[in-house]
Amino acid sequence: MKTYLECIPCFFKQALFAARIVLKDEMDIKHVLDRIGAILPHIPLESSPPETGREIYRIIREMTGIDDPFRELKAQSTDAALGLYPALKGVVESANDPLKTAVRVAIAGNVIDFGANPEFELEKDVRAILETQPAIDDYSLFAKKLGKAKTVLYLGDNAAETVFDKILIETMHKPVVYAVRGRAVINDATLEDARNSGLHKVATVISSGCDAPGFILSTCSREFVDHFTIADLIISKGQGNWEALSNADRPIFFLLKAKCQVVATELGVATGDTVIKYAPGRG
Amino acid sequence: MKTYLECIPCFFKQALFAARIVLKDEMDIKHVLDRIGAILPHIPLESSPPETGREIYRIIREMTGIDDPFRELKAQSTDAALGLYPALKGVVESANDPLKTAVRVAIAGNVIDFGANPEFELEKDVRAILETQPAIDDYSLFAKKLGKAKTVLYLGDNAAETVFDKILIETMHKPVVYAVRGRAVINDATLEDARNSGLHKVATVISSGCDAPGFILSTCSREFVDHFTIADLIISKGQGNWEALSNADRPIFFLLKAKCQVVATELGVATGDTVIKYAPGRG
Repeated sequence: MKTYLECIPCFFKQALFAARIVLKDEMDIKHVLDRIGAILPHIPLESSPPETGREIYRIIREMTGIDDPFRELKAQSTDAALGLYPALKGVVESANDPLKTAVRVAIAGNVIDFGANPEFELEKDVRAILETQPAIDDYSLFAKKLGKAKTVLYLGDNAAETVFDKILIETMHKPVVYAVRGRAVINDATLEDARNSGLHKVATVISSGCDAPGFILSTCSREFVDHFTIADLIISKGQGNWEALSNADRPIFFLLKAKCQVVATELGVATGDTVIKYAPGRG
Repeated sequence: MKTYLECIPCFFKQALFAARIVLKDEMDIKHVLDRIGAILPHIPLESSPPETGREIYRIIREMTGIDDPFRELKAQSTDAALGLYPALKGVVESANDPLKTAVRVAIAGNVIDFGANPEFELEKDVRAILETQPAIDDYSLFAKKLGKAKTVLYLGDNAAETVFDKILIETMHKPVVYAVRGRAVINDATLEDARNSGLHKVATVISSGCDAPGFILSTCSREFVDHFTIADLIISKGQGNWEALSNADRPIFFLLKAKCQVVATELGVATGDTVIKYAPGRG
């Protein structure tokens, strides 16, 4: 997905949110916003929002000297998600179609987002999503293709959402490679966050090698790109990954909640809708 | 009121909204945002938001060559407001306390705002406000001070809101000087807009001499400042005027709807609340 002009105010909003977590002085925070103002002319509208996100969070790291501003928030939300795990696991196991319910659970985990959706209320939002019909629902195709797949590549999004992804992975009964960010960015999951939610017990966890909040293939590691090229089935979680990969050449199942008007419009749904969308890929 | 860091994303959002009205090419619109990015370091947090608003809309005028991007929207909303006039007038005239109801009507008109509140729905929002108790309600004091006042200075805000102000002015039965912006900025009322809503029939309409979306006294005309200094009673409409005059040295009645979190927090109310607030002034 390209960058829309509407993304620009949102870049400042997200940068402010992140800078406020680690900086106390208002002028120091303003200097971060000033720097983002200065790079605006160098943000091409043809680039995807995660490419700009990468630049913004690089600026925040550089100006604050803090590598992972969201570390504490990520730990707290992972603990909260682990607290919900037994109940969600029970919901899946007692469901008529456990796989279908596990997909919904995985999408519900996508509410955990301090970038586009910092006002989420975990338990309430999760329960609402479990009861909501996705606005785009390619679940039947997903179940069919999953049945035939020998290898699955799972593209992670936020920390704590990883706990919800673990439930889907446990329900799929397939060998899964789970890819996370190459470096801390927003509250997205890193290797450390994936381990904290126990993902390493059910999947091979790898790094994308890329520090953007989305898989920008041209900057990902060779290891990741190899998995991306050969996997029988690719599952992609969240907006950032969709923004980065909506024009990719491989077939992908996108599971996400549309959190902003721009992404909702691109998908042809309403803000707040959930989506199980199969994109056949350009290849 | 000072500028909060939260105002910065909002400056970009408002500039985008205004630029979209007059520019068709996405790159031309982006250049407007780039220019605002470039002036960010020169926006002091000690200045009030309307001071920055003035700079932003100067940039939009300069880069688009269009003096009043909102002219058509202002004409449409004035027509819509004039359409509601007979019904609102009837509500006031049949009320137990016509002045109290007219004050509510004037506040209801403050929903018309293509800056902080572009998604308003005129008739629905007006009816809701008429039935809502203001979160700060200094109406009794207002009625008392109005009774003693020989001269009233009324500080206008948006075009079309002027129609609602006219109803309050007709109900006050006092000589009123009504001040508007010195030049088109957002959808704020100018001399032309005031005339289009018939305000000149019930008040002496003057210009502030200032092109900001708020009365910044240091840049207002001598004529305006004289009225501001000697008026027995000052009524100020809307957020922009409150932001510019919240620390003024003269007593002022502020009538407004709190449209953003920053202003709501400063006033100690919730976003969406209405306010009849007496500020005794520093003088």
